[in-house]
Amino acid sequence: MKLLEIQAKIKEKGIDGFLFSSKPSVFYLSRFYSTNAYVLLTESKKLFMTDSRYYEGAKDRLKDWEVILFGKKNKKQIEELSDIINEMEIKKLGFEEDRTTVSFYRKLKEAVTAELVGFSGFLNPFRVSKTEEEIEIIRKAVEKTDRVFAYILNKIPQAKDELDLRRMIINQIFLEGGEGESFPSIVASGKNSAVPHHETSHTTIEKNQPVLIDMGMVYRGYCSDFTRTVFYGKVDRELEKIYHIVKEAHLTAVEKVKAGVPVREIDLAARKVIEKYGYGDYFLHSTGHGVGIEIHEPPRVSHLSEEILVENAVITIEPGIYIPGKYGVRLENVVVVRKNSCETLTKTPLQPFKIG
Amino acid sequence: MKLLEIQAKIKEKGIDGFLFSSKPSVFYLSRFYSTNAYVLLTESKKLFMTDSRYYEGAKDRLKDWEVILFGKKNKKQIEELSDIINEMEIKKLGFEEDRTTVSFYRKLKEAVTAELVGFSGFLNPFRVSKTEEEIEIIRKAVEKTDRVFAYILNKIPQAKDELDLRRMIINQIFLEGGEGESFPSIVASGKNSAVPHHETSHTTIEKNQPVLIDMGMVYRGYCSDFTRTVFYGKVDRELEKIYHIVKEAHLTAVEKVKAGVPVREIDLAARKVIEKYGYGDYFLHSTGHGVGIEIHEPPRVSHLSEEILVENAVITIEPGIYIPGKYGVRLENVVVVRKNSCETLTKTPLQPFKIG
Repeated sequence: MKLLEIQAKIKEKGIDGFLFSSKPSVFYLSRFYSTNAYVLLTESKKLFMTDSRYYEGAKDRLKDWEVILFGKKNKKQIEELSDIINEMEIKKLGFEEDRTTVSFYRKLKEAVTAELVGFSGFLNPFRVSKTEEEIEIIRKAVEKTDRVFAYILNKIPQAKDELDLRRMIINQIFLEGGEGESFPSIVASGKNSAVPHHETSHTTIEKNQPVLIDMGMVYRGYCSDFTRTVFYGKVDRELEKIYHIVKEAHLTAVEKVKAGVPVREIDLAARKVIEKYGYGDYFLHSTGHGVGIEIHEPPRVSHLSEEILVENAVITIEPGIYIPGKYGVRLENVVVVRKNSCETLTKTPLQPFKIG
Repeated sequence: MKLLEIQAKIKEKGIDGFLFSSKPSVFYLSRFYSTNAYVLLTESKKLFMTDSRYYEGAKDRLKDWEVILFGKKNKKQIEELSDIINEMEIKKLGFEEDRTTVSFYRKLKEAVTAELVGFSGFLNPFRVSKTEEEIEIIRKAVEKTDRVFAYILNKIPQAKDELDLRRMIINQIFLEGGEGESFPSIVASGKNSAVPHHETSHTTIEKNQPVLIDMGMVYRGYCSDFTRTVFYGKVDRELEKIYHIVKEAHLTAVEKVKAGVPVREIDLAARKVIEKYGYGDYFLHSTGHGVGIEIHEPPRVSHLSEEILVENAVITIEPGIYIPGKYGVRLENVVVVRKNSCETLTKTPLQPFKIG
């Protein structure tokens, strides 16, 4: 883990401690999942504070941490938390201003003697590059998602409507050992596939239409993300053409992925292919995003991004073309950025799947 | 709808407008579901601002609103939002400080000329008492949840483990037309049932043990909440005794429910029954909570609560007894507070279910 580096950054930023209050941050730092916990880091200390539901488990697992139980006294949790901070004589305390409500901030500010210093994305530079252990978990999540797709593919004709297919996806995620969806699965049939973020609905899945499936699972706290566009029945020639353009854009972007490359070049590589065929105006989103504890993490694989790809970042590659009122195609894999190339975790082929 | 009353309250509070940015508030005010929208109310105006995914639908449905499309100019959304606020010449703008991040607040503060005034729970007094239309939706959600339970009850012996039963619950929620779980279903078997907020795990569901099932669905944007403790196989005599104490506590609390009663009396009624039998120390949480667009809404049915029950509030009644390391029992129904009594929406009986 990068705790020592994170503690060093705290010192470097001129603060005496940092209070992490959001679930993803607390999980990232402690590797312990809880719905109610705080992590407080100083240059030399690591505190994990939680309630009686998680206390015993946390004490068991977090051997070199100070694990503190909330709820002992007849006090509100924020008061207990403030007491702990005050006892530590912290003068400047960092907090996650992008993940903290104004109410919480105001209450904390009133109760602690420390000056509060807000940071946005404090952990991003650490979280973006995954450890091999994290990559192994994501690899499993992606493998399991491939299997969900293989199962679901042939169920399309049986699904009553889009939401019914979503139900089958969720059921299969659990059967594969997942902890649930990493986001509400998108099942977009026919012209719904032309809407990049279509909300899965009671639309009947008609034959001779494409079905776009964008889904992911949470597995051991990490997310997968996956999209395929399936041809259900006969396909219109333009749709087939678009599919192959998206596939070419996808593969062209993947070829560019390696450590040290500016992220925008990945996006531009996909974009250029789509523009070359005259569909530039129909590629409505960026080429991808980081994925890990959260479904959307840095980097944003966009032409507006100023970031540089770092080794062991895990990102999605997901170009798409959307013809309003007709249909859309998106093809999404998860890849790991390596020193001289990238490793594609998704094993489902990119060739068109034709069913029915 | 209570929009006129809400607009009157805005004026009464000495502010010229209120920006609602959280999903539940935006849905409550507009009855339009979107993952990215703001509502701005002034004494005389109603603005609904969203992106291209929701714009057409919102314009169609919100006839007497000003519906504004984000993303027209090459601007960040918060800049567009600020421009709109500035054009309206609002001097004092209310915002939801309990649902807004510090980052958002800081960006907004920089970009608008208005003074920002934070409020916590601004809509609570309106949301707590439901309209008959809202009650009808919740009634359906509860009915469907009863049916999920009836189905799932006999599946307990087939479930591989707790999570497998949760999978079946979710599947059944979708088959009933639900939009998903209203919270992660709790399946707690054997000694896990002694943990009020047990996290559903890979624990095998053993025979001759209780199985506590706490679940709910979202239906048309509203939540249901439901708990039963099932006897799987033979039951220990103390467990049976505890079951009947919890049932008595439940019914005693329900009898107290009517408009005008201090909420704490409901909690105290349940608590007294449990104390009378000597289990007072094993009732670890409050007796219930409001339920609606969110799974936990005011009022908190606690002995610490200062609130008074209002007509048409929808609350849960869910006393429980938890013997550490052994087992627990909780029985939860959803009830509507009426003028002289209450209406129980949950139709599943409170008698013990014995299976296997």
